[in-house]
Amino acid sequence: MAFKRIALIGLGLIASSISHAVRRAGMETEVTGYARTEKSREEARRLGLGTIFDTPQEAVQGADLVVLCVPVGAMAAVMEAIAGDLEPGAIVTDVGSVKGAVMEAVSPYIPENVHFVPGHPLAGTEHSGPASGFASLFDNRWWLLTPDEGVDRQAVEKVKEFLTEIGANVDEMEVSHHDLVLAVTSHIPHLIAYTMVGVADDLGRVTQSEVVNYSAAGFRDFTRIAASDPTMWRDVFLSNKTATLDILGRFTEELFALQRAIRTGDGEHLFDYFTRTRAIRRGIVQAGQDTDAPDFGRGLTHQK
Amino acid sequence: MAFKRIALIGLGLIASSISHAVRRAGMETEVTGYARTEKSREEARRLGLGTIFDTPQEAVQGADLVVLCVPVGAMAAVMEAIAGDLEPGAIVTDVGSVKGAVMEAVSPYIPENVHFVPGHPLAGTEHSGPASGFASLFDNRWWLLTPDEGVDRQAVEKVKEFLTEIGANVDEMEVSHHDLVLAVTSHIPHLIAYTMVGVADDLGRVTQSEVVNYSAAGFRDFTRIAASDPTMWRDVFLSNKTATLDILGRFTEELFALQRAIRTGDGEHLFDYFTRTRAIRRGIVQAGQDTDAPDFGRGLTHQK
Repeated sequence: MAFKRIALIGLGLIASSISHAVRRAGMETEVTGYARTEKSREEARRLGLGTIFDTPQEAVQGADLVVLCVPVGAMAAVMEAIAGDLEPGAIVTDVGSVKGAVMEAVSPYIPENVHFVPGHPLAGTEHSGPASGFASLFDNRWWLLTPDEGVDRQAVEKVKEFLTEIGANVDEMEVSHHDLVLAVTSHIPHLIAYTMVGVADDLGRVTQSEVVNYSAAGFRDFTRIAASDPTMWRDVFLSNKTATLDILGRFTEELFALQRAIRTGDGEHLFDYFTRTRAIRRGIVQAGQDTDAPDFGRGLTHQK
Repeated sequence: MAFKRIALIGLGLIASSISHAVRRAGMETEVTGYARTEKSREEARRLGLGTIFDTPQEAVQGADLVVLCVPVGAMAAVMEAIAGDLEPGAIVTDVGSVKGAVMEAVSPYIPENVHFVPGHPLAGTEHSGPASGFASLFDNRWWLLTPDEGVDRQAVEKVKEFLTEIGANVDEMEVSHHDLVLAVTSHIPHLIAYTMVGVADDLGRVTQSEVVNYSAAGFRDFTRIAASDPTMWRDVFLSNKTATLDILGRFTEELFALQRAIRTGDGEHLFDYFTRTRAIRRGIVQAGQDTDAPDFGRGLTHQK
């Protein structure tokens, strides 16, 4: 039931982690790959991520699973390029953070005899490139699939089985709901972290060394988020425009209410608001999606 | 040259960590303490944090260093209460996150023969209470002092020596500059993290379990920040009003520019902005204030 040959198109953090996780799982699956730049292809070869080809067409030939691991804005062009070389019965999936736009972009190029099962792993680090991947990236993380109603259920189940074997928890979600949930839990948090770091950078009155040295609390976590891949995040915001603008509107509304409380000295409003937000944190710790260890403001180590 | 007796007024995260760090350093210093609630005093006794008294007056008697570890809003009342029981020549310091307001509140009650050396440790976790402290909390973290020009330099040096012995890097800063720098690196980041978690909580369309389960990227770090002590943070915003409103204005200005770029599809603006913010992150890693390990979106462990 396992895949014979998996083609990774794009060789960044997610693709290289898939390659490591496939090997860790002991699958007999062959892994092929393609990256746009010669530098990345060379690095991937040196790292032994799989059989790396100079064109995406060669990489997908004979593959029964093709994983599109390119930025959201590059999905359509890549899919158009490989469409003619896909095996009959092959399954195409992707790892884009936005699903509506990707499905719109990719679906027109999916051949009749090929199954498209869009996906999104909720896992990542602030690093990118072929050398950034590691086998445990997906362990106990969610991988959401947003297949169209008409898609072959056997194909969906086969993808689920594969993702489970590389460590992920898999769930299905309706596509527009996915894009709204992710705007809340990921896209807008990233946007405001980028904004805050930008503000600090702009302020001539606060020298860079002060911002850097005295960033123990709060700001340092923001810089970590704001160090994520710029291309990926540009594409996320451009392709999930409706949901991000919607949530952004709610965010500024709340922020202005807190700003008003500060200006008028309304301590009760602030205290009540800050108390309420503790409950969500407890929920996350209880759901096993983070630990209760007192890390904040401290050096962090990578949990294997 | 070491202190003979240190009185910790307020027994939360910072005070309990000071107690552990004093013991770790092998000082022969006696530690006394006081907390407002009987529950905290009992817990502190059980944890062996020092000789715990039922009144702050008893706790400070005979102490040559008094550390005010209560929320910023409670500093004035506590200082007024202990003023008559301080030893001649004693040094009073505090650990408030805002320095201008604390100095204004505390200074009038400082007796003639007592030295006031205001301080602020840039260290913490999202936990609070007597049981939350640990000896390594201050290791390699900055502890900023904002003494008035007129204060006895020997007292300042003695505090510096003590803080260095419990692990901290010590620096001096002009008080209003401190409050501006901290608004950027800590206060506003906390405010927007609280806001974002509040928005997620409000959205009926995104159920709580979804927010919790799918919070791998970005949002989870915000919930950690937003789980910090509500009383402490209420007091921070009420007492650092000018600087937080100033930085908040800059923040919303930048955020609106990015929102406009999303709405108009200006990918170049987004890409440039996201690229610029990577540099600050590199600076923080180079300054040794965080590691380069790929933790983000992963379970975190506490680095001892």
